Amino acid sequence: MSRRGTERGGAEGRRAKRDIGRLKQLPFRQVTNPYPPMEIVSAEQIEAIHRASLDALQEIGMNFLLPEAREILKAAGAEVAADGPRVRFDRHLIEEKIKTAPAMFRMHARNPDHDLTFGGNHMNFCSVGSPPNASDIEGGRRPGNFADYCDLLRLTQSLNIAHLSGGYPVEPTDIEPDIRHLRAVGTLLKLTDKVGFGYSLGRRRILDAIEMTRIARGISEERMLAEPSLYTVVNANSPLQYDRPMLWGMIEMARRNQPIVITPFTLAGAMAPVTIAGALAQQNAEALAGIAFCQIVNPGAPVFYGGFTSNVDMKTGAPAFGTPEYAKAVLIGGQLARRYAVPYRSSNVNASNHPDVQAAYESQISTWAVMLAHTHMVKHALGWLEGGLCASFEKVIIDAEILQNVAEFLRPVEITDATLGLEAMRDVGPAGHYFGTAHTLERFETAFYQPILSDWRNFETWSEDGAVDATHRAHRIYKEILADYQEPPMDPAVAEELDAFVERRIRDGGATAEA
Amino acid sequence: MSRRGTERGGAEGRRAKRDIGRLKQLPFRQVTNPYPPMEIVSAEQIEAIHRASLDALQEIGMNFLLPEAREILKAAGAEVAADGPRVRFDRHLIEEKIKTAPAMFRMHARNPDHDLTFGGNHMNFCSVGSPPNASDIEGGRRPGNFADYCDLLRLTQSLNIAHLSGGYPVEPTDIEPDIRHLRAVGTLLKLTDKVGFGYSLGRRRILDAIEMTRIARGISEERMLAEPSLYTVVNANSPLQYDRPMLWGMIEMARRNQPIVITPFTLAGAMAPVTIAGALAQQNAEALAGIAFCQIVNPGAPVFYGGFTSNVDMKTGAPAFGTPEYAKAVLIGGQLARRYAVPYRSSNVNASNHPDVQAAYESQISTWAVMLAHTHMVKHALGWLEGGLCASFEKVIIDAEILQNVAEFLRPVEITDATLGLEAMRDVGPAGHYFGTAHTLERFETAFYQPILSDWRNFETWSEDGAVDATHRAHRIYKEILADYQEPPMDPAVAEELDAFVERRIRDGGATAEA
Repeated sequence: MSRRGTERGGAEGRRAKRDIGRLKQLPFRQVTNPYPPMEIVSAEQIEAIHRASLDALQEIGMNFLLPEAREILKAAGAEVAADGPRVRFDRHLIEEKIKTAPAMFRMHARNPDHDLTFGGNHMNFCSVGSPPNASDIEGGRRPGNFADYCDLLRLTQSLNIAHLSGGYPVEPTDIEPDIRHLRAVGTLLKLTDKVGFGYSLGRRRILDAIEMTRIARGISEERMLAEPSLYTVVNANSPLQYDRPMLWGMIEMARRNQPIVITPFTLAGAMAPVTIAGALAQQNAEALAGIAFCQIVNPGAPVFYGGFTSNVDMKTGAPAFGTPEYAKAVLIGGQLARRYAVPYRSSNVNASNHPDVQAAYESQISTWAVMLAHTHMVKHALGWLEGGLCASFEKVIIDAEILQNVAEFLRPVEITDATLGLEAMRDVGPAGHYFGTAHTLERFETAFYQPILSDWRNFETWSEDGAVDATHRAHRIYKEILADYQEPPMDPAVAEELDAFVERRIRDGGATAEA
Repeated sequence: MSRRGTERGGAEGRRAKRDIGRLKQLPFRQVTNPYPPMEIVSAEQIEAIHRASLDALQEIGMNFLLPEAREILKAAGAEVAADGPRVRFDRHLIEEKIKTAPAMFRMHARNPDHDLTFGGNHMNFCSVGSPPNASDIEGGRRPGNFADYCDLLRLTQSLNIAHLSGGYPVEPTDIEPDIRHLRAVGTLLKLTDKVGFGYSLGRRRILDAIEMTRIARGISEERMLAEPSLYTVVNANSPLQYDRPMLWGMIEMARRNQPIVITPFTLAGAMAPVTIAGALAQQNAEALAGIAFCQIVNPGAPVFYGGFTSNVDMKTGAPAFGTPEYAKAVLIGGQLARRYAVPYRSSNVNASNHPDVQAAYESQISTWAVMLAHTHMVKHALGWLEGGLCASFEKVIIDAEILQNVAEFLRPVEITDATLGLEAMRDVGPAGHYFGTAHTLERFETAFYQPILSDWRNFETWSEDGAVDATHRAHRIYKEILADYQEPPMDPAVAEELDAFVERRIRDGGATAEA
């Protein structure tokens, strides 16, 4: 065990780089999980899911809606229907092709201090991605817009526990769809220097995102090939279908060695069987087909096994998140990803309509499951509300606290003669106290985690100070962070090149999902 | 795996006995944890804590403030100081004596349907115990009183996920101290038929609690000896001291074969060393000395290894709960309890001043740690706020939801041909949906956990219905439960005998902690 990872080592580490403005936070660092993953089903049960998913791919197959994708699959030996989008896979083809997916890889940020490793026991937290609305408790809920988009990116940049962007933190719907990716990614690359993202919504758009990222990093195309620098999420259009824009994204990202997060959206009882086992079997079929497709396009291309299985409320059909079923699906998803030795993606989710107690306990259930599953990329880790329909500014802060707690929990307890403290017990003896002892004084400043949101003052002091609950404190904190935000530096020549690219492509009319 | 424990079996089980009035809840059942415990330190590190704690007991010793207890320890071979309360223990004496503590035992309730097993992979949830204040968001915070005491007991009785009482759910400070135990325990035994509790606050008081429990169960003294029927919690007066009232409780409860929960109160940085390792070493020393003492009094007496190590906020000295340090201490405490093969007690805690987001995430951190530690008795599982200074009516409901989620999470996923759902995938095919399929219709009513507090309606419906957040919904729910409460039946002759005992002992003047 290195000193760095232990109580004292980490405590020392905390002194550096933790503070941005008024926010006293943990320093930016990669979180690693030293504990074994939690396995809730047996190896035999994992094989049963594996077999069922290969049966599904062989007997039922999947629709690949892009002819170019079907040609690629046909050339690789898949059984492509003569008169439609259906592709069936021999189980051995799948098992053979997924073997080239790397178990671990690194992603490179504009700021090399923010480079990240995916795989092994690393854990990375993404800001929320893709909600159509944003809210705070002062301004209420509003349709996604560019101002909120920028503010949420500023929070992503300022919060050290946010390792990377998770897509547009809110959809800037006030920008025309055809040019939205240019304005959005161009701005993302300036307001943050963390690993970024591009949407697989057509060929032209993902190529634009790749090019903007290359420019922002100031590197050559060759170096981009060697250094994954942005990622995309590809959702199966469950059940058992990949649509055209997503397939274009897979093809272009895989060819350029940029990571693809293959994530079936398998809500048990809606787009997947009503049982967790069945939803996971379908998730696994869709994920394996997607991973195999990327590997056929470019053997060795970095991919994630994404799990997003949850259940619906059977009374209303509404999706439910942060449920017991979700936690089980996350953990079994981790077991499946390890079965295939592919980095795992899952999410910090909840279905609450307000940054309230429900949002907190559902998120906390998700977060422990995600941690125990050895998730490498935690999507929607900061700010998700309403099952993903809203990005909440207060929830960003609540989640930052929840995630800092996770990061601290994962630092091993140091057990040595000094920490066991027998000397201190001798000094204090029965019926004394430890407040002023040497053992305490040497350690008290950094002995324990200091929260950013939790208020541990007593009731009387808290009451006299206005009795502000945690949600309202989160509101104040996010406002302070925005007031203290500083844009990360960018070489003026690079900024100019990036701006020029964005403006030129906007003049060209941008791109549709079908371009 | 029995059908009973699986998705379908449990779902069937849910139909019985789940509902009380308007509350649609899970049925009363013992929760078992089928997953392995989480171990965050190695066996060697556990031995290091064990050795340090035995060193402390041998070199420093503990104060036992009751002369009778010192005589008992002297006769058993401990080194008792000639001129003071200090007792030192040879390590072999401790190791020898703790061997007779049972690894598993059953507790018997007034209603045999509510009998409980402690040990193995069983998990039992107690209502909150001992806060000096109570609150709800309508009435605010008030000093503990008998009316709130009764209402909190009614919630304990009505909520199936509350397995047993955890002490007085709020201190009824409007009853004179000398007669409080008579009125409080007498009332508890009538308002609930679940396993109850007596405080070790002197010899006479615990004997009264034992006798009232015997009368309420309508059994003989011999049968009480064979059937543990109430328990007590004994806190070390940390560091390294047991006071007189607690020692009387230990002696009388152990002699009568009633369970004693030995719980050092080791706040790292205050009553224990500022390191988690040191606080745990001291916890272990105090717990082992207490367990050994009980076994010396009555070999084979049922005891719990209690862990309550947390940290203080080093800025203010205020206790912090539900922290990363707390979670680690809970898990290592579980490892220590298993080392000694004694049932484990830990707690669902938080330090928030309001039933808000902080209360929820700190409680949820505690609850996952408690579950992963294989805690057999979870104290303060429902209703604790403010680091134990307040019982919150809304928090009872929030915790009930959190605990029901735990219970559901612990039901294994059933993986069979039927649940894997390949037939359903064939029926639906790519790009369809599962809402109306036979596989779904057969299962949808009981497929997933139905929450009592979470609201999964969409934002628009939730807003039109008043945009009520989870804390305010919890308020409504607790009021409904109280309105629907029905007192569990008691044989009129038993009730008469119980009333007569209480009134006679009150006429006698009750008892002080020194009686």
